[in-house]
Amino acid sequence: MNITLDIIGYIAATLTTASFLPQAILTIKTKDTDSLSLSMYSIFTLGVLFWLIYGIYKSDNAIIFANAITLLLASSILSFKIYNTVCKKG
Amino acid sequence: MNITLDIIGYIAATLTTASFLPQAILTIKTKDTDSLSLSMYSIFTLGVLFWLIYGIYKSDNAIIFANAITLLLASSILSFKIYNTVCKKG
Repeated sequence: MNITLDIIGYIAATLTTASFLPQAILTIKTKDTDSLSLSMYSIFTLGVLFWLIYGIYKSDNAIIFANAITLLLASSILSFKIYNTVCKKG
Repeated sequence: MNITLDIIGYIAATLTTASFLPQAILTIKTKDTDSLSLSMYSIFTLGVLFWLIYGIYKSDNAIIFANAITLLLASSILSFKIYNTVCKKG
């Protein structure tokens, strides 16, 4: 039961972390961020930073690893959105 | 120390969950999903579903609550993306 629970947790963490990779690739490739919400990526990136701090405090390598990757991907997407917003491209 | 850690965790969970609200509002309002990745929202929604199952198995109300809201928001965004993709709008 505990092993099943661990597996479900690892699948969940892998999926939610990995999901930002295709979005980052799409954004880097097309540079189009029109339908991305600036608020979403600002709040989400800040939230992931808090998760990373939480993981570091707890010395939990799984939380640190997953959120370090997500932070990298989400902040890349956010950077494109900020750049486009500043340059009035939407 | 434990209270500080709990607070950091709650801030993190609130931010990453709440972040999908402005994206869902933007998507519902504009119906524009051109720069959203179908792969991202498919994988992410599935991941959140696994987090929800994980929370139910663990009887962890915080995980259940946060992921039920995120699932609702992410699946709304995904529905618009699938609709637009099927209708060849991108």
